Amino acid sequence: MGSVRNILFIMCDQLRADYLACTGHPSIKTPNIDALAARGVRFTNAFCQAPVCGSSRMSFYTGRYVQSHGATYNGVPLKIGEPTLGDHMRDLGVATGLVGKTHMAADIEGMKRLGIDRSSIQGVLAAECGFEPWERDDGLHPDAFTDPNLAYNVYLRDNGYDGDNPWHTYANSGVDETGNVVSGWYLRNAHLPARVDKAHSEAAYMTMCAMEKITELGETPWCMHLSYIKPHWPYIAPEPYHNMYTEKDVIAANRGEREKENPHPVIEAFMGHEESVNFSDETKRRHVIPAYMGLITEIDDNIGRLMTFLEEQGRLDDTMIVFTSDHGDYLGDHWLGEKEMFHEESVRIPLIVSNPDSACESTRGSELHVLIEAIDLIPTFIEALGGEAKPHMLEGKSFLPLLEGNNSSEWRDFVISEADYSWRGARLSLGLTPDDARAYMLRTERWKYISYDQFRPQLFDLQKDPDELIDLGASDLHKEIRAEMEERLNRWLRHRRNRTTTSHEEIEKKTDTAKNRGIYFGVW
Amino acid sequence: MGSVRNILFIMCDQLRADYLACTGHPSIKTPNIDALAARGVRFTNAFCQAPVCGSSRMSFYTGRYVQSHGATYNGVPLKIGEPTLGDHMRDLGVATGLVGKTHMAADIEGMKRLGIDRSSIQGVLAAECGFEPWERDDGLHPDAFTDPNLAYNVYLRDNGYDGDNPWHTYANSGVDETGNVVSGWYLRNAHLPARVDKAHSEAAYMTMCAMEKITELGETPWCMHLSYIKPHWPYIAPEPYHNMYTEKDVIAANRGEREKENPHPVIEAFMGHEESVNFSDETKRRHVIPAYMGLITEIDDNIGRLMTFLEEQGRLDDTMIVFTSDHGDYLGDHWLGEKEMFHEESVRIPLIVSNPDSACESTRGSELHVLIEAIDLIPTFIEALGGEAKPHMLEGKSFLPLLEGNNSSEWRDFVISEADYSWRGARLSLGLTPDDARAYMLRTERWKYISYDQFRPQLFDLQKDPDELIDLGASDLHKEIRAEMEERLNRWLRHRRNRTTTSHEEIEKKTDTAKNRGIYFGVW
Repeated sequence: MGSVRNILFIMCDQLRADYLACTGHPSIKTPNIDALAARGVRFTNAFCQAPVCGSSRMSFYTGRYVQSHGATYNGVPLKIGEPTLGDHMRDLGVATGLVGKTHMAADIEGMKRLGIDRSSIQGVLAAECGFEPWERDDGLHPDAFTDPNLAYNVYLRDNGYDGDNPWHTYANSGVDETGNVVSGWYLRNAHLPARVDKAHSEAAYMTMCAMEKITELGETPWCMHLSYIKPHWPYIAPEPYHNMYTEKDVIAANRGEREKENPHPVIEAFMGHEESVNFSDETKRRHVIPAYMGLITEIDDNIGRLMTFLEEQGRLDDTMIVFTSDHGDYLGDHWLGEKEMFHEESVRIPLIVSNPDSACESTRGSELHVLIEAIDLIPTFIEALGGEAKPHMLEGKSFLPLLEGNNSSEWRDFVISEADYSWRGARLSLGLTPDDARAYMLRTERWKYISYDQFRPQLFDLQKDPDELIDLGASDLHKEIRAEMEERLNRWLRHRRNRTTTSHEEIEKKTDTAKNRGIYFGVW
Repeated sequence: MGSVRNILFIMCDQLRADYLACTGHPSIKTPNIDALAARGVRFTNAFCQAPVCGSSRMSFYTGRYVQSHGATYNGVPLKIGEPTLGDHMRDLGVATGLVGKTHMAADIEGMKRLGIDRSSIQGVLAAECGFEPWERDDGLHPDAFTDPNLAYNVYLRDNGYDGDNPWHTYANSGVDETGNVVSGWYLRNAHLPARVDKAHSEAAYMTMCAMEKITELGETPWCMHLSYIKPHWPYIAPEPYHNMYTEKDVIAANRGEREKENPHPVIEAFMGHEESVNFSDETKRRHVIPAYMGLITEIDDNIGRLMTFLEEQGRLDDTMIVFTSDHGDYLGDHWLGEKEMFHEESVRIPLIVSNPDSACESTRGSELHVLIEAIDLIPTFIEALGGEAKPHMLEGKSFLPLLEGNNSSEWRDFVISEADYSWRGARLSLGLTPDDARAYMLRTERWKYISYDQFRPQLFDLQKDPDELIDLGASDLHKEIRAEMEERLNRWLRHRRNRTTTSHEEIEKKTDTAKNRGIYFGVW
């Protein structure tokens, strides 16, 4: 094993932290991801900065909280000028690119204002969140707005799948009992096999692209973001994954009748969303989850292919491998579907990090329970590659010392995650403007506090109620702890890193030096 | 009088709100500014967003709080990508440029990252805070780092002032009693006349440049930021302004012995700065203030020239004229010099707005006491020119309705101003890191609350103690009001406009429409 030269940053979309064998799921099979965990460290308390794709990813990719980068939801363009993972890596001479999904929306207006040509190198990088778009694809392409020449569509046609949008009509569709081609977007079709061979599925295609690109990069140091679209909906998997699991393999829903009595207004509004209503129906839930699990095992098989390939190429010895997800999936827990709110099922993410450096021998196969945030990845990558910390800009902390077994007592007291549900029906049913649909989660080891604009907070005692079934947000007995949490949240809010253009060193160098610079103010 | 076609946005540097005849100063002469006030509205409660040049100006020029734009102090580059006054004006077809000072530091790293050529039009605008640099000059050029070819230096040489840096050796210097040329940067030389003819002073030169540019612009609609460097130090004025005022004209210092007993730690640290010690000496204070007053009357005379010129050109009929300052000057009040803290002398600014529109007849010559923030200017300019409000980006409010006499009851409950004293000796003497030297002022009509990182807050009851001599920040009787103020501050913090790339209209249009867009999530 040698020191870190490359970084393989693998992300799944909507993969719950507890849906891997190595994280305790009783029936799912994920031997390759488990093997990665055995070679590295598994963080049991890692959290996304926002439980929704776009804003979570912009935090992963900028190393900054949503409050700071401002891309608060899917489709909100990341402001031109926000430095990204790619910028930090390229500064260290590391080619940095993407295979898969980012959910990045380019700030076209900002680019126009600054006269940035979209076809220039900098224009492409700015539009692609700082990644070289080795193969960009966000998936989820219904017919309505699909470019028929998306690379995966071309690939599918080259492999005999016909039509303008085989991504949809094959990879995301099945054939029902009456012989009709039906959309995998409908939950009722989750039991059908997708009309694509597993050799040509999204996950297989992305894995192939990654291997081709790694081969092509040769001895150039690289940071690859391999970003799978699955197990995100459409919940439809190719053979043999579509019926690899049955409803017997589905773990019980984590929900209680009590949650429906006098729920928090925002949670109640989310319970009214179609995905929540459907996943609250146990029959539907048991119909869909086996497909979700199949998609996970499919990714695991592809991770296996990839690891074999890396081993053959000698890249396991100089590549740090990170495996994570942008957020979880309620799957009916707490009477909710999808994500966006802050229960563990939605906000906690899997995080496995395998570092080839011999300094990390002592931690291989271990699990760490410290609180980790998605924004910790960039500082970790920078430190692993020997770069300089940038605390004026990056809001996370390098966890490299933890991988090396230096488990200092002072780590972090709490994690933050944020939501902006302006785009959801819940906002309308609650009668809010787009300025008042924000929420902040502050989670310590014991407490989870959620502060909403316009509504009372939520509070869970994770020690006494690890399943988060009892909301103490209005409990008289917990006034003090809520006040303490609110106070911490406020301190956090006022300490956001907004002075991103000046380093601490520059400030120290200039403090109280006006006179030395010939500026005599207030001198008699 | 016609409707608004051009905007003349005049700023002084370090001009206290109470140092004009029309704002109540008993001995200063400012007949031309008074005449402007007689034609317009004078706001008696206008505040800068930060009582220091750079950060205050970046708020004026972006329409955003310091918390949002992040340029927290002099010399902190404004992040590339922040939209500016110039961007908003150009969208409305209005040529927008600068004559004078901005204190803008370009985000060179950001420009490099985005491949923006500094010599391209967009590069120049990005580096100049969105202004066409019709004549950029920030003044304050000690020999140590002056470009001898600054336009004002060239102008001075053309007019017979010799040397590499006549700005310093003539405009900012005098001749002492022994015949030596001495620097106006030393307070002790404030009584000497500057070695420049008033016809060639900074203020006269900037006024000349403005008039030339306005002539050149002809019938093109314009927004000009005429930004005088004075009455900012060096406190040295040319004949006859240098001895137009004597110590008899100096108003009494606003300070009490009680302020020195057990002061707030941050205030105490600032009291220890050299400028505070010197201005606390009454003899020195009375020696310097007449020069400060002379510099103000000099600007007033130049405003007079400019108004005559505008009248001759017919521009008074289609030009909205704004007169303001970036912040005030303690001048020894509260035992402090300079600015940076939040007493009225530092944070309150003069603001006079003359709108030629006949809709504004009813308010001419009036004064308004509503709370105004510097960030209100851009929304006002946009509305006056018929543009669209941009509440997702601009954090202020158009006060155009107030100019038109629509004095709605709902205006604003409080104003905010911010400080980052990381660069000052006070931070070192308090033992703080550059992350902990921030402060926020929240001022309502009655209360001024100042919240510091690491220290107790300050509180003043402006009704009972308008001179702010009694700090109630530790008073037991005022716990509740402090808690209420802190709560308001926290609400303000969490409502900063960070989602700048997506308008409210776009959100409304997309809310709960996934299905219409072909995206079926959670549908059975």
